[in-house]
Amino acid sequence: MKVNADDFFKAAALDKPRVTNKVGSNVTLINVMQIAGLNTLGISIARIDYAPLGQNPPHTHPRATEILTVLEGTLYVGFVTSNQPAPNRNKFLSKVLNKGDVFVFPVGLIHFQFNPNPHKPAVAIAALSSQNPGAITIANAVFGSDPQISDDVLAKAFQVEKNTIDWLQAQFWENNHN
Amino acid sequence: MKVNADDFFKAAALDKPRVTNKVGSNVTLINVMQIAGLNTLGISIARIDYAPLGQNPPHTHPRATEILTVLEGTLYVGFVTSNQPAPNRNKFLSKVLNKGDVFVFPVGLIHFQFNPNPHKPAVAIAALSSQNPGAITIANAVFGSDPQISDDVLAKAFQVEKNTIDWLQAQFWENNHN
Amino acid sequence: MKVNADDFFKAAALDKPRVTNKVGSNVTLINVMQIAGLNTLGISIARIDYAPLGQNPPHTHPRATEILTVLEGTLYVGFVTSNQPAPNRNKFLSKVLNKGDVFVFPVGLIHFQFNPNPHKPAVAIAALSSQNPGAITIANAVFGSDPQISDDVLAKAFQVEKNTIDWLQAQFWENNHN
Amino acid sequence: MKVNADDFFKAAALDKPRVTNKVGSNVTLINVMQIAGLNTLGISIARIDYAPLGQNPPHTHPRATEILTVLEGTLYVGFVTSNQPAPNRNKFLSKVLNKGDVFVFPVGLIHFQFNPNPHKPAVAIAALSSQNPGAITIANAVFGSDPQISDDVLAKAFQVEKNTIDWLQAQFWENNHN
Amino acid sequence: MKVNADDFFKAAALDKPRVTNKVGSNVTLINVMQIAGLNTLGISIARIDYAPLGQNPPHTHPRATEILTVLEGTLYVGFVTSNQPAPNRNKFLSKVLNKGDVFVFPVGLIHFQFNPNPHKPAVAIAALSSQNPGAITIANAVFGSDPQISDDVLAKAFQVEKNTIDWLQAQFWENNHN
Amino acid sequence: MKVNADDFFKAAALDKPRVTNKVGSNVTLINVMQIAGLNTLGISIARIDYAPLGQNPPHTHPRATEILTVLEGTLYVGFVTSNQPAPNRNKFLSKVLNKGDVFVFPVGLIHFQFNPNPHKPAVAIAALSSQNPGAITIANAVFGSDPQISDDVLAKAFQVEKNTIDWLQAQFWENNHN
Repeated sequence: MKVNADDFFKAAALDKPRVTNKVGSNVTLINVMQIAGLNTLGISIARIDYAPLGQNPPHTHPRATEILTVLEGTLYVGFVTSNQPAPNRNKFLSKVLNKGDVFVFPVGLIHFQFNPNPHKPAVAIAALSSQNPGAITIANAVFGSDPQISDDVLAKAFQVEKNTIDWLQAQFWENNHN
Repeated sequence: MKVNADDFFKAAALDKPRVTNKVGSNVTLINVMQIAGLNTLGISIARIDYAPLGQNPPHTHPRATEILTVLEGTLYVGFVTSNQPAPNRNKFLSKVLNKGDVFVFPVGLIHFQFNPNPHKPAVAIAALSSQNPGAITIANAVFGSDPQISDDVLAKAFQVEKNTIDWLQAQFWENNHN
Repeated sequence: MKVNADDFFKAAALDKPRVTNKVGSNVTLINVMQIAGLNTLGISIARIDYAPLGQNPPHTHPRATEILTVLEGTLYVGFVTSNQPAPNRNKFLSKVLNKGDVFVFPVGLIHFQFNPNPHKPAVAIAALSSQNPGAITIANAVFGSDPQISDDVLAKAFQVEKNTIDWLQAQFWENNHN
Repeated sequence: MKVNADDFFKAAALDKPRVTNKVGSNVTLINVMQIAGLNTLGISIARIDYAPLGQNPPHTHPRATEILTVLEGTLYVGFVTSNQPAPNRNKFLSKVLNKGDVFVFPVGLIHFQFNPNPHKPAVAIAALSSQNPGAITIANAVFGSDPQISDDVLAKAFQVEKNTIDWLQAQFWENNHN
Repeated sequence: MKVNADDFFKAAALDKPRVTNKVGSNVTLINVMQIAGLNTLGISIARIDYAPLGQNPPHTHPRATEILTVLEGTLYVGFVTSNQPAPNRNKFLSKVLNKGDVFVFPVGLIHFQFNPNPHKPAVAIAALSSQNPGAITIANAVFGSDPQISDDVLAKAFQVEKNTIDWLQAQFWENNHN
Repeated sequence: MKVNADDFFKAAALDKPRVTNKVGSNVTLINVMQIAGLNTLGISIARIDYAPLGQNPPHTHPRATEILTVLEGTLYVGFVTSNQPAPNRNKFLSKVLNKGDVFVFPVGLIHFQFNPNPHKPAVAIAALSSQNPGAITIANAVFGSDPQISDDVLAKAFQVEKNTIDWLQAQFWENNHN
């Protein structure tokens, strides 16, 4: 098999703004599905667009650490540490990032980016330490899975009534499917 | 330095039932903090107790796959797949496990175990593919972190009003700190 | 390909006692051959049954560390360190484990478990840090291989006469094939 | 030790143009030396500035694959495959990249980026699959090391006279140290 | 810290014949203890001398695969496969190697080399895929550990009487300590 | 599939001198292409022949550290450190090796071996920490690739005139293809 420059290339248009989704963001990921030459090489990259007041909502990457650089605008970012002993138990570490700043989200931790500016969009480049990092949006996994997770489970987990969970799930479903 | 059998041993009393917490479970993890000889060896083990109708609520392990075996009782278990393309996008895969059954939760995915029996406790042994797997309970990280994640962020992420988030956070905080 | 909960599940009946073999043990291993979803995930689990005075004889796992928990009975366990300099050269580290105790056998070291109780069986759960750990029973590999290892080699290795080796091999063969 | 958001942050000013060096480029690398929180996490990021007709000259990363995205301008990029059998022996694979395009340079291969535009600068973001990727500029290592590599060795390697090597080394030294 | 060529060097005299031990061999291993620059780099090398009819007795490397090249003489080599299903269960694979031949012993498997020539020594170079591969000589670990493994355990494992084990251990001890 | 000793064997004739190439060397590499049983096992081995005044010219292994042992003759060896901060920036570390000496070339660094003796050949055994280490000869990749790297790029990289590069490339091409 003859290798070719195109096996390592993607005209990804990462310079172009994207239309953002309901929560005001859009992640354009270039991983091994887009560039076959990345196979086994342990890296991928994404452009992230944020609408004014938009966010890349709380999520995790099961197989990658992320390093993010702000290209345009301002981002309020954060992650939460795991259930470890004090003083680091479930700590929320956050930072306001300006253009040119760099921030790291360690593998598997829940993190988000939020554009606090009501008038201007923001843009970031995020690199991930896997050719297939995966992403799990917490709200989608918890309240928007197919089929739904039992409300018995979620009511106790979130320490609310079952009808609160039912309402949260219905709400989420309606917002995402209509 | 002379090695010693005790560097590889822990009188962990994993045969003894534990008092369960507010959501009806208790995880007794034996990792590299308890047995120094596990260092770099990539494995740890836990006993999990479930009260009647108790659960080990939705959580992830950022650095480990888990393989669980039911020792006593019945468990309803599940995990949600990542944001991948159809037909596997945010699928909730679940199973009722009986005594002696084995189930795998792949690294970094959100999963839970629930004891559906209103009268009897359940017990499982879970092995994890890291000497320091970490655990992130979703509700604690999202609604119970210190400090709290901004309600601006969570309202949009969960697609509810900010005062719903405030109420969920207050509720969660009160339940966990009083 | 659509993933399915059954790709991550095995009705392994790990709660059920097994009939033990000639040396008084039975290892029921759940690895990637039994649960395809374990592929690349680096973990597996086994139930081990021990008859009264039975043993899981000296063996190694070429690709895994083992962490063992006693579920029933008492076990006398041990491993031997490698040919390193004093004070750790070929040290035999051993421990009597009671119900609920946990012990670690580092990757590739020769180890065993023995049930010292002449009246009661014992049971353990062992987790291994590979989806395909492998197992090499020393006696089977050295005296019971197919074909047999040359007695020239073994006589010098064990520093006995060749006819002693021949007798050990014949004995072992007869016990295992009749 | 209490973790802190600043352990994962660098005000790296990656949005700001850099003064380029003699060959018309400047690499601003953010690795584990700049962000301690990257330790063991296997990723780093760099901004690369290219003057008009400037280049990031042929080099390798001994411990990382690179994925590059063009932020401004045009880049002519390439790498050379290893000494493998035909048809892939020492093939030079190249591509002209425009703003928004993505290209991968596999671990350890010799690669470069060149700005073919005589009037406009170019800018790229490069992510690397190690927290400490290393970089070896071929010309510096071969003709500019301290001390110099013997001209006996280099003359035969490059199949020229020793005085050609001496002149190349002297030239290179003068250009880089005056 | 300034690096130095001597951090990567050892005047190991691997060209010089060694005095062989009781079983007729001598392994001169150059690992990270001899060359600090090998740290984390995953490789080491050894010269092995074999007396006429000498052997490197059955052993394993818990953390390395070995690739062996015969420099002088003839070697009869072999390894035994693990307890896997037929047709590969405990198979003894062997080969007579002549000068210049290469053979691989996969990680953790029991293997040996034997010099079948009653008049001439043999020499090999073995490379190992770890900077600290470890070695476990089966006879030393099983019959020569300190303290001795209980004869109850070994008698059942090797399916002989306890006094046979006692005699094997005493014999081995005497041969190795007098 | 039944495994076989021949899957782990190669009659490689590594004891036999090889005809050396134009720069006075010959590398006979035994990797996973020659021995299928090496797959995933992370090691390979090579015999290297050096003519009087011959060399294994400056090259890198993109996926392996090398540990070299001199079997015959004398070798002048060296490698150059990466573009790191002083005092280790682009340092050329070298050593004269005699028969039996061992030297390590860390993964991805540019290194060479040169036989300074005008009358006698030299021989070495080199082990590499990958079953498929790869090799990139600097001169071939830089001045001998197919197609040629643009002289615009190389002139600036090596800080010479374009016609010097054209001449170096033509020279190299002629020497290697006629």
